Amino acid sequence: MCGIVGVTGRQDAVEVLLHGLEKLEYRGYDSAGIYVNDLQGQDYLIKEQGKIAKLREKITSDVHGDAGIGHTRWATHGVPSEDNAHPHVSENGRFYLVHNGVIGNFAQLKAEYLSDVNFVSATDTEVIVQLVAYFAEKEGLDTLAAFKKVLSVVDHSSSYAFVLMDKTQPNTLFVAKNKSPLLVGVGPEFNVVCSDAMAVLNITHDFIELTDGDVVVITPQEVAIQDKNGEAVTRKHFTVDIDASASEKGAYEHYMLKEIDEQPAVMRALQQVYLNADGTVEIDDEMLTAIKNSERIYVVAAGTSYHAGLVGRELFEKIAQVPTEVHVASEFAYNPPLLAEKPFFIFLSQSGETADSREVLKRVNEWNYPSLTITNVPNSTLSREASYTMLLHAGPEIAVASTKAYTAQVAVEAILAKAIGQMKGLQKAIEFDLKKELTLVANAMQIMVDEKYNMEMLADEYLKTTRNAFYIGRGIDYDVAIEAALKLKEISYIQTEGFASGELKHGTIALIEEGTPVIAIITNELTAAHTRSNVQEVIARGANVIRIVMDSLSQDQDQIVIPEVHPLLTPLVSIIPAQLLAYYASKNRGYDVDKPRNLAKSVTVE
Amino acid sequence: MCGIVGVTGRQDAVEVLLHGLEKLEYRGYDSAGIYVNDLQGQDYLIKEQGKIAKLREKITSDVHGDAGIGHTRWATHGVPSEDNAHPHVSENGRFYLVHNGVIGNFAQLKAEYLSDVNFVSATDTEVIVQLVAYFAEKEGLDTLAAFKKVLSVVDHSSSYAFVLMDKTQPNTLFVAKNKSPLLVGVGPEFNVVCSDAMAVLNITHDFIELTDGDVVVITPQEVAIQDKNGEAVTRKHFTVDIDASASEKGAYEHYMLKEIDEQPAVMRALQQVYLNADGTVEIDDEMLTAIKNSERIYVVAAGTSYHAGLVGRELFEKIAQVPTEVHVASEFAYNPPLLAEKPFFIFLSQSGETADSREVLKRVNEWNYPSLTITNVPNSTLSREASYTMLLHAGPEIAVASTKAYTAQVAVEAILAKAIGQMKGLQKAIEFDLKKELTLVANAMQIMVDEKYNMEMLADEYLKTTRNAFYIGRGIDYDVAIEAALKLKEISYIQTEGFASGELKHGTIALIEEGTPVIAIITNELTAAHTRSNVQEVIARGANVIRIVMDSLSQDQDQIVIPEVHPLLTPLVSIIPAQLLAYYASKNRGYDVDKPRNLAKSVTVE
Repeated sequence: MCGIVGVTGRQDAVEVLLHGLEKLEYRGYDSAGIYVNDLQGQDYLIKEQGKIAKLREKITSDVHGDAGIGHTRWATHGVPSEDNAHPHVSENGRFYLVHNGVIGNFAQLKAEYLSDVNFVSATDTEVIVQLVAYFAEKEGLDTLAAFKKVLSVVDHSSSYAFVLMDKTQPNTLFVAKNKSPLLVGVGPEFNVVCSDAMAVLNITHDFIELTDGDVVVITPQEVAIQDKNGEAVTRKHFTVDIDASASEKGAYEHYMLKEIDEQPAVMRALQQVYLNADGTVEIDDEMLTAIKNSERIYVVAAGTSYHAGLVGRELFEKIAQVPTEVHVASEFAYNPPLLAEKPFFIFLSQSGETADSREVLKRVNEWNYPSLTITNVPNSTLSREASYTMLLHAGPEIAVASTKAYTAQVAVEAILAKAIGQMKGLQKAIEFDLKKELTLVANAMQIMVDEKYNMEMLADEYLKTTRNAFYIGRGIDYDVAIEAALKLKEISYIQTEGFASGELKHGTIALIEEGTPVIAIITNELTAAHTRSNVQEVIARGANVIRIVMDSLSQDQDQIVIPEVHPLLTPLVSIIPAQLLAYYASKNRGYDVDKPRNLAKSVTVE
Repeated sequence: MCGIVGVTGRQDAVEVLLHGLEKLEYRGYDSAGIYVNDLQGQDYLIKEQGKIAKLREKITSDVHGDAGIGHTRWATHGVPSEDNAHPHVSENGRFYLVHNGVIGNFAQLKAEYLSDVNFVSATDTEVIVQLVAYFAEKEGLDTLAAFKKVLSVVDHSSSYAFVLMDKTQPNTLFVAKNKSPLLVGVGPEFNVVCSDAMAVLNITHDFIELTDGDVVVITPQEVAIQDKNGEAVTRKHFTVDIDASASEKGAYEHYMLKEIDEQPAVMRALQQVYLNADGTVEIDDEMLTAIKNSERIYVVAAGTSYHAGLVGRELFEKIAQVPTEVHVASEFAYNPPLLAEKPFFIFLSQSGETADSREVLKRVNEWNYPSLTITNVPNSTLSREASYTMLLHAGPEIAVASTKAYTAQVAVEAILAKAIGQMKGLQKAIEFDLKKELTLVANAMQIMVDEKYNMEMLADEYLKTTRNAFYIGRGIDYDVAIEAALKLKEISYIQTEGFASGELKHGTIALIEEGTPVIAIITNELTAAHTRSNVQEVIARGANVIRIVMDSLSQDQDQIVIPEVHPLLTPLVSIIPAQLLAYYASKNRGYDVDKPRNLAKSVTVE
């Protein structure tokens, strides 16, 4: 969360920063700000609570500079406000700092060194910039030395990407990175720094990846990197060739709707990338061997990716016959289960930057276990640090509520499951004709996305004013139910819980009252009758029920009927009406669909 | 759910039925009814929506009989109403039936045989009683033959405990049982039948257990049992020696408060039962050997017991070094994971009657795997059918919201974990001094239950009007958070979710707004700082935070400080403030604490 951008050597620095922040807005949008200066010593600090558009309005035409830093915030310490917005400035007005991450010992540092300083914010970041000023003044250090001194007193558990500017040294960015993502972008006579390449793809495609512990001094002509031991080093360059326009929403009112609509195309793209003409799967043999030689798969993820992992368990167990556990990343990191002797780890992360997952991957690497990251972002941290990577090929996902990344994750898991099963010579895997099945899925998805009008009506009828809602299902439908519930709650703020149908009566059914919406997902023949019984139980208590049912199991009064697909691939289709119900519920209620309150797309703090 | 009682050979039949229903009210209380008749052919059918007290009011002094049936309902098909209440009667007024369970093919049976019949209710049960009349009339069968004919057309997946009366054959009860619990109680010149021995402990302690498929004809003098093949059989008698008065609430306003208060005493009782003077654990060696020889423990449970199972996983993995999975019973039954080659199953169920768990146990027995039931009720179905039983010794738990059964389950799991570890010679288990630790726990519990006033104030301040709430924690505190959330929501109807602290930001934090109560549980040194960071995140978004913190980790502003206990036993203590907050929130909001709407204590349908 929080997005950072910095630039030096561009006369249009203000526009570079604002454009970058707009592209980074998915990372947080509580408040934002920029600081710019020029070689004549003129400078400007402008901050605003709320979204980037409000910041842009506030910036008058006289604001200019050749270099600057910008920040869009997702609050960790202190409420969203102009005071708490970045950049933060030292009391003497000399140093300006933007920060993404969390400083563990900020309160101690403040107490130890800065008892004489007047603070204007409640943030951990202001402590850091005041501390730079303190070491520069009290110990007579130059800026780089003062900055490094500060880094040396920050405790080990802290995470940060810092970009510091010194008013007396215009055109220079002082950068440090630990755990939080940060890239340097290189251009002719200018350089930039950013949390995500997306921010600056309009001016460069040439990037340098930084490593934890790096400290960097950037001018228009030079990127000077020191590693954590203070040695000058060079880091490798890489090219990001995503088309900048792929992240535009075109004629769509919201990114989320565009991304929902793109799902059939993503299914086809994945077929192209991973499947051979004969329907067999083409994946790195070395990785498959590593999985085949392991006893148990551990899937580690958070949020929507965790829900995709739950579906993955069904696929890995039923198609590839590998016992699989799925763990919430933030829980696994500090309380791992007893592991099998030969585990294989799979990390799911749309952004590839999820801090909770990365914390686990660091441990997995220390233990020397093999790992795979399934992500949408090449060269992301989790991709670089895992043994293997599989890409989602979903194109940039901008809406905070994940849609196409979820279905892409499930499809890639299905592909992987088939590949493992194929290598193990399992009949079920060999017969699992993904070429055909994913084509059926893409067609079924298309039918569902074309039912927008129906979903809009249902959202209007059932979800317009309710305070709460439930999704229920059994087996794989339960896995979808909890993802569907998250989708609805994160953008419509209706408190929604996903429940195993059979578990509802063990307590939670107390919450069902006259008019409570309950949405049942029914795609499994074996349990359809049981789930319908549970539906009767909630109807008896006054619930308004929507049924999402696979064609062959459907009955007259079912409102949403999904076309028949392979029983293990139903999540790819049954989630779509849920995505659309969430979308229209949020829109109907007048919320910002793409940027729900309190959230950030890429969660880079623990 | 649903409670049944039947009696024959008692002039006080009406009182026997009403007393029985009052004792069974925990099984459902949407509506209730009785049917009685005498040898002179006079009969009465009285039904009422709502609780038993309302039914009792409605029964005038002229209502009498020597035999009868009674029922308290938890709705599965059809809303709670007088029409849908049991007993149901055939159109010709001859047959009367009470039923606990669900008939899978009732709609088909109705369509096939009963198109000419006028139905007064929406229940599956009425179909059955009309069908008895249909076969008796159309095929000229006697009552027993017509009843057995009906049982033969009911589909395999159905569950039932039926008690049927025929007006023309007073003093005779026709009984059938499949999956749903039913016991026969025996007396001098009278017999009774009931869902739970508790119902009739005031008149007999001598019981006969029935087996699935049994059909029984009961008169004052005789209990004639036929098994599923129609063979006359005898079933074994057993004595229930629970003191009937242990289920009285005495001076307490509610059972729940009494049961919360009993928890320190339950801890001491468990020490007495399971621990030797030297602190070693005394448990069946054969069972321990079976667990020691297994590769993996599978805990299967529902609701609160499932949450106790999550704590059990920590204990079995950390103390006994046995990899452990915990599964929701209703999910496992129809979608089991890939099992280890040598699994050991543990079933947790307060009542020992949970239908979802029983469905799994039936499969486990078919697979021939060893199993243990941990339950509060000796001779309950899950106890009888598992290889081994450990009892909770918690005394009858009457409030629907489970409290002392939860802590007793956790304590028994700790005892079992030590016993396994002890047998395996693990140092950590040998050093785990449960004698000392459970004494510390009992003392800490006592301190917490004595803080009622503080909890009442906090409930008043934070939970009086809110529409939603969250509990958060990490590791073992997360396990407690979801149980704490269930407690609050099931009796106060505040929609409460328990969340892994680190997972909240991956979507659900969107629901936090000004004034949302968030209750954080912090007992683990390793993750305390991380959870406090997550607390800062929700405070920054306006949440009202209550912190439940273990003494050594507590800070000035923490509202609830729990005494120091063993890090793996903190759930036994940290749950108590949560139980009390739930209790007072429900009471403050004016609800029936002991009998929340829609719920039943013993869930005997799937």
